[in-house]
Amino acid sequence: MPRQLYELCGVDERLVFSPYCWRVKMALKHKGLDFETVPWHFQDKDALAFSGQEPSEARKVPVFVDEDGTVVTDSMAIIRYLDRIYPARPLLGDEFAAARLEFIRHWSEAVLSPAVLKIILGDLFATLDPADQPYFRRTREAHLGISLEAFQDAEAGHAALDRALVPLRRCLAHSPYLDGEAPAAADYVAFGVFMWARVVARQPLLAKDDLVDQWTERLLACFGGFAAKSPRAIDILR
Amino acid sequence: MPRQLYELCGVDERLVFSPYCWRVKMALKHKGLDFETVPWHFQDKDALAFSGQEPSEARKVPVFVDEDGTVVTDSMAIIRYLDRIYPARPLLGDEFAAARLEFIRHWSEAVLSPAVLKIILGDLFATLDPADQPYFRRTREAHLGISLEAFQDAEAGHAALDRALVPLRRCLAHSPYLDGEAPAAADYVAFGVFMWARVVARQPLLAKDDLVDQWTERLLACFGGFAAKSPRAIDILR
Repeated sequence: MPRQLYELCGVDERLVFSPYCWRVKMALKHKGLDFETVPWHFQDKDALAFSGQEPSEARKVPVFVDEDGTVVTDSMAIIRYLDRIYPARPLLGDEFAAARLEFIRHWSEAVLSPAVLKIILGDLFATLDPADQPYFRRTREAHLGISLEAFQDAEAGHAALDRALVPLRRCLAHSPYLDGEAPAAADYVAFGVFMWARVVARQPLLAKDDLVDQWTERLLACFGGFAAKSPRAIDILR
Repeated sequence: MPRQLYELCGVDERLVFSPYCWRVKMALKHKGLDFETVPWHFQDKDALAFSGQEPSEARKVPVFVDEDGTVVTDSMAIIRYLDRIYPARPLLGDEFAAARLEFIRHWSEAVLSPAVLKIILGDLFATLDPADQPYFRRTREAHLGISLEAFQDAEAGHAALDRALVPLRRCLAHSPYLDGEAPAAADYVAFGVFMWARVVARQPLLAKDDLVDQWTERLLACFGGFAAKSPRAIDILR
């Protein structure tokens, strides 16, 4: 069977923006592995029952199904699985590299993502399938502790993003990719957040002269422009 | 000749607090290499002429002199040198690991250090040799763009530190060290900032139940309590 990636999509199924799914898709392309996307919505918890994630509320994408039927959940677990089963073109590196990737992953999730979310939240909400919006509002408001409307603040988000990007910019002043001369897992983990913004946002996240923007351009061009070709809300939705 | 580390010291030469020097000292202990400290003050630019750093204003510690007379400047360059010449007990890891270490290093310098400095600046200034204080004030005020007094703000510093530590705390919730089951370069790079605070500060930086505090305790105990034994201003200065 073909490899499958269950992936969150918006009101139009061509709009795929989950930063966690983007990590995995870039990792699959890095390995040169073909796969097909299975569009998934937040309300499709039953469709992920096969993945073993319980309770049903805990069922999340990405879920990866390899060609032999092996099912792997959680983006970082999928990346580790890919390196174990398909060791050519490594993603993780040695034990120190894998441990340090966890720091970059937690920075992406706890520092970078919230800053970006403050900027894109309205556009993200508008990109969701309307049937997913109540679920999204309920779970995110519980997590944030405030209403979506109170959290959204593009100006504060841009200020937070500018501060958050300092370590990334300093790396990119000396190296084309976070992982050195060519991209690998650290790049894909952080890049997922920028694809999330790219697919849903009406306004550019970064200035063209920003080293981080130039790095995203390099990653957009990888694998024959795989990420660059992903449809954007700005092109599809009114 | 014995290996030498030129190291910044305070008004009492037993007070050694440079976060960059601490990185290197922990790396030397990690390798099991003996060395002696050569106390250095900011005004001793001439004493570093041998290191090749020009102009004299650019002369900084750490400067490492190996037993064959090889001179290496810059903390990260010294760590790379140690791994190259003394490959047992690696510090850096593979190419991905070394690249990801740069992210953690820039995070330490650009996010962690400024938050800690806002808290400890008064104590740090008081720990300096009085002859170094004008140099410190001039260079740091030029860098910060404001006076030391305007920069110092323990309350804002603690708030910034609490935010800054989130990715580190998340790593330490799953692993005893940043580099996994045992410490290596990523731990020593970040730990240097905490030794800077430990040596100069009058108040504890972190709460005892903070995972980061518990990680610093583990690092303080490494190598027979090497870092724990380093004298503190609170014990030496009135």
